[in-house]
Amino acid sequence: MADVITLYDLTAANDRRFSPFCWRIRMALAHKGLDVALKPLRFTEIPAAGGDSWSTVPTIDDGGKIVTDSWRIARYLDETYPGPVPLIGESAGAISFVNHWTNTVLHPGVITLILSDIFEKLDPVDHAYFRESREKRFGNRLEEVQFGREERLEGFRRSLQPLRSIVSEQPFVGGEHADFADYLPFGGLMWPRVMSDFRLIEPDDPVEAWFLRVAALYPGVADGVPRFY
Amino acid sequence: MADVITLYDLTAANDRRFSPFCWRIRMALAHKGLDVALKPLRFTEIPAAGGDSWSTVPTIDDGGKIVTDSWRIARYLDETYPGPVPLIGESAGAISFVNHWTNTVLHPGVITLILSDIFEKLDPVDHAYFRESREKRFGNRLEEVQFGREERLEGFRRSLQPLRSIVSEQPFVGGEHADFADYLPFGGLMWPRVMSDFRLIEPDDPVEAWFLRVAALYPGVADGVPRFY
Repeated sequence: MADVITLYDLTAANDRRFSPFCWRIRMALAHKGLDVALKPLRFTEIPAAGGDSWSTVPTIDDGGKIVTDSWRIARYLDETYPGPVPLIGESAGAISFVNHWTNTVLHPGVITLILSDIFEKLDPVDHAYFRESREKRFGNRLEEVQFGREERLEGFRRSLQPLRSIVSEQPFVGGEHADFADYLPFGGLMWPRVMSDFRLIEPDDPVEAWFLRVAALYPGVADGVPRFY
Repeated sequence: MADVITLYDLTAANDRRFSPFCWRIRMALAHKGLDVALKPLRFTEIPAAGGDSWSTVPTIDDGGKIVTDSWRIARYLDETYPGPVPLIGESAGAISFVNHWTNTVLHPGVITLILSDIFEKLDPVDHAYFRESREKRFGNRLEEVQFGREERLEGFRRSLQPLRSIVSEQPFVGGEHADFADYLPFGGLMWPRVMSDFRLIEPDDPVEAWFLRVAALYPGVADGVPRFY
């Protein structure tokens, strides 16, 4: 195992690191107290960087051991670097529910509110790829997907109720200590804050207080990057 | 500890046992292989039965030890009757998220679709209490809350996406084995099936296959009661 783990990390223009999946792993590495060397990649640089070995980020290289996919990386870190609070540990079933909620409720909710903002902050080399792939996925122009977001904001905020409810009762989704059940939705909420000034979470929302608690856990990690709010 | 645990269980007319919270505990007791004596109570019988000791169901009496509230009961059963697969075990944080999702998404979704059906199947002694308390909560007549449910059904089904997504990948929310992360949403879906012929889950939905897998785990428990579908 290496002294420093390399994390291939998605970047936009101006060094903005925005991938919700990469943020899970930034936080997971910090949780384990591991040093990380970030290798920024634009969308269109990923195929050449990964070659025959991997094709998506996050991917880590731990002294030559390549692990890809955020869930698999978290499992690998638990096995290789045990610690007092596991990322997933024995809770794979239930944390998997948080993963599915994040992927099927939180992320789809976020993306339709900021899709065009994301496009604008990408490095221009990624513009054609992003527009083509996302417009195919949504069956509409980026600008049309985002249009009318003010009217959809309340529904998005309502959809966060399970997260709001649990963090109103306990400091972290994981309980007294944060774990991967926190870093999953945390990644989904770092993403818009790095890429858009359209505020998704109200300042007095318990979700906001929880987000800031998680962000403050590892000084210099999520707290060390420019966010719009 | 007693040979047989008493469970105070909510009942409607014709001995229909419908409480989603009590169903969690029926399944949890079966999971532990414990014998149970069910004490059916109508809503309006609960205060006299509990006296100064307890005021909600589910409540269990385990040889004189009273435990109330479904989450606390599951914790008690794990502590008192350890087994190969804990109900909650070390996964309290993440299973708590499933609990909050069940309470803030699944249950509110179900109740507005079947509120008037529930009323009709209650024992008449409970009618006045139920109508008054629920009409106060919803700010509307029971019949008005349920009205137009056909148009809301698709949104309800969409709201189950996190559950659908996870049980499409693995047999149970808990993983290879069912645990409390399964019994929480299972209770929320037994409830309408016992009280209403309005079908909430389509036969080809992966949620339906999962529901039937969980129901079949303990012959004579959920499989032993009349359901509409």
